[in-house]
Amino acid sequence: MDHGSQILLSLFVVFVAAQVGAEIAQRLKLPGVVGEIAAGCVVGPSVLGWIAPSAPLEVLAEIGVVLLLFAVGLETRLSDMRRVGRSAFAVGVLGVIVPFVLGSLWAHGSGFDWARSLFVAAAFVATSAGITARVLQELGALQREEARVILGAAVIDDILAMLLLGIVTAVQGGEALRLSHLAIVLAEAVGFVVVIGYVGTRVMRRASRALNAPINPLSPLSIVLALCLGLAFAATEFGLAAIIGAFLAGMIASETPERETIEHQTRPLLVLLTPFFFVITGSKVELSQLANAEALLALAVVTAIAIVSKLIGGWLGALGLGTRGALIVGVGMIPRGEVGVVVASLGLAAGVFPPRTYALIVAMSLLTSIVAPPVLALLLRGKPRS
Amino acid sequence: MDHGSQILLSLFVVFVAAQVGAEIAQRLKLPGVVGEIAAGCVVGPSVLGWIAPSAPLEVLAEIGVVLLLFAVGLETRLSDMRRVGRSAFAVGVLGVIVPFVLGSLWAHGSGFDWARSLFVAAAFVATSAGITARVLQELGALQREEARVILGAAVIDDILAMLLLGIVTAVQGGEALRLSHLAIVLAEAVGFVVVIGYVGTRVMRRASRALNAPINPLSPLSIVLALCLGLAFAATEFGLAAIIGAFLAGMIASETPERETIEHQTRPLLVLLTPFFFVITGSKVELSQLANAEALLALAVVTAIAIVSKLIGGWLGALGLGTRGALIVGVGMIPRGEVGVVVASLGLAAGVFPPRTYALIVAMSLLTSIVAPPVLALLLRGKPRS
Repeated sequence: MDHGSQILLSLFVVFVAAQVGAEIAQRLKLPGVVGEIAAGCVVGPSVLGWIAPSAPLEVLAEIGVVLLLFAVGLETRLSDMRRVGRSAFAVGVLGVIVPFVLGSLWAHGSGFDWARSLFVAAAFVATSAGITARVLQELGALQREEARVILGAAVIDDILAMLLLGIVTAVQGGEALRLSHLAIVLAEAVGFVVVIGYVGTRVMRRASRALNAPINPLSPLSIVLALCLGLAFAATEFGLAAIIGAFLAGMIASETPERETIEHQTRPLLVLLTPFFFVITGSKVELSQLANAEALLALAVVTAIAIVSKLIGGWLGALGLGTRGALIVGVGMIPRGEVGVVVASLGLAAGVFPPRTYALIVAMSLLTSIVAPPVLALLLRGKPRS
Repeated sequence: MDHGSQILLSLFVVFVAAQVGAEIAQRLKLPGVVGEIAAGCVVGPSVLGWIAPSAPLEVLAEIGVVLLLFAVGLETRLSDMRRVGRSAFAVGVLGVIVPFVLGSLWAHGSGFDWARSLFVAAAFVATSAGITARVLQELGALQREEARVILGAAVIDDILAMLLLGIVTAVQGGEALRLSHLAIVLAEAVGFVVVIGYVGTRVMRRASRALNAPINPLSPLSIVLALCLGLAFAATEFGLAAIIGAFLAGMIASETPERETIEHQTRPLLVLLTPFFFVITGSKVELSQLANAEALLALAVVTAIAIVSKLIGGWLGALGLGTRGALIVGVGMIPRGEVGVVVASLGLAAGVFPPRTYALIVAMSLLTSIVAPPVLALLLRGKPRS
């Protein structure tokens, strides 16, 4: 009973902190998501200690970001994605290569051997689609060409990041790289995205009447939510992030005539659940590890490398959209968010690098997530919506 | 990463099982909730073992039932509740006394000493408001007088059950009953309900413009959800069930002009989250403990006592509504659901009774929850809605 009471208090604290943080941020003309992450940092163990990491909160956070990417998918048509395919591919590939190269150079320069440096660099690579998606959604910019390039690139980015993590783990463990194995992993991931994306949308277009077959009047929502949870799980089985599956589920659901109803009904779900993702993300910042000048300097350098490398990669890949469009895409790819945190946790658990490097990478991941949204908002507001 | 994958699979299984179960039940003209509980039994450890109890699933179940009672509160006005106050009080009191007396007689008859018998009897007492509320909601019967009596009685029932549990725990431990202590506990619980109910609704009537003060266009929903989580937590601090706080929060929110919008926006939340409560409840049935004739006979006796005693108590209390109305109220009070399970867990943990008695009480609690909804639906459908 006491445990139930404790978790209810945590839910209340997370939810209220998110609302207060978002409100303050928006009054300061910043995206609400920045306020939610900052609020998480304040109520988390680093400052007030009102919430502590726990499995239920992590699961709520995961459900929150899964639903967010599902909602983003709902506003994305496959046909729109295909139109930006080339740019998205270039942004995804260059946005992985440039940060990986610069990241490994920095790691080697700061004393790691090459095998370890490659692992550290892997944490520089993966973009967190959730944070940018939220900013795009807040500003009503999901229909812009830049938004589609960013979302497409995020899918490619995730596939490449997964491959890269497989490679650096093998190199780190001194294993021989088995190209045939990597080829299978790549083929599975690409196959999953292509088959679900193409076949799923086609099936949905023809079979959308089935959504209304059950007695339950809200059955279209129930069925697409089941699809969302199912594909989120399936994506993890193919080595991809759960949010990739949720995004594809949203894209499939966007092919139905009920699309607008579902979009409308998804909003309250986002109100309740996405705050958990952003507040929990923010609560992971370990300020104590960074409470000295040397650490702060190192953090500044690492964050600068992370920002500049992704910006260059994204910008080069998206030059087809014009200079400003390419800049928007580049900035949109900057946040590392929880993906960087996950890679850093793997490195720490495997003993590849010390806690200090871990704290550094986590702080960098979260800092990029706080820095990018306001800049992105500024760039998007500065230009009339297309 | 693997853990995340595992929990996503559990979420998917629970959600899909609920949809399938509800659909089958509704096609058999049974309330959907029966199908969801049965589906939980099937996918739970007893039969298929596709889901196992875990903290995140328990928390999702708790959020689900909290939101359900919040939604029920949204459809309930304080003024309506006051009109049925006397009947609700009588139903609450008699619905506690009769099961407690019959339950302790049965326990003593089956070999427990009196102190232990009182503890066992406490598990016969508390009604699970969630299950009846869901049936009333499914049938659109929340505006009926019987529904209000049931909901009011459930609040009184919960207060008395909490007191009773305090008393039997003290008796069990051989402590002297401190009446002053019990009076404080009672005063706190009653005070919480009265103050929150009366003051909360009055404040909301005057201050409802504040709901639209934040920038966030969905702020009315955010604020009442925060209220819901906050009062759910506060209720547990006053020794009450979280759902009592959530119900009061809903009643307060029903005083705002945004009531209908909020009601509409709450529905998708119920679609996603209430299935967790009913499926997890169902997954707790331990069929293996009951797989012999003797145990089944004992279960039949216990369940009969639980049903008849609550029916008599509720019926006597609600005679003011006429014979049929009183019958509806009596049946509505039958489900013990998770409340019986919680009391049984306490008894098992304190060593008051053996695992077999525990299994018996858990099975009885869940059986009453499966038996009552179809009968309630039949009675409600048989009479035009008032």
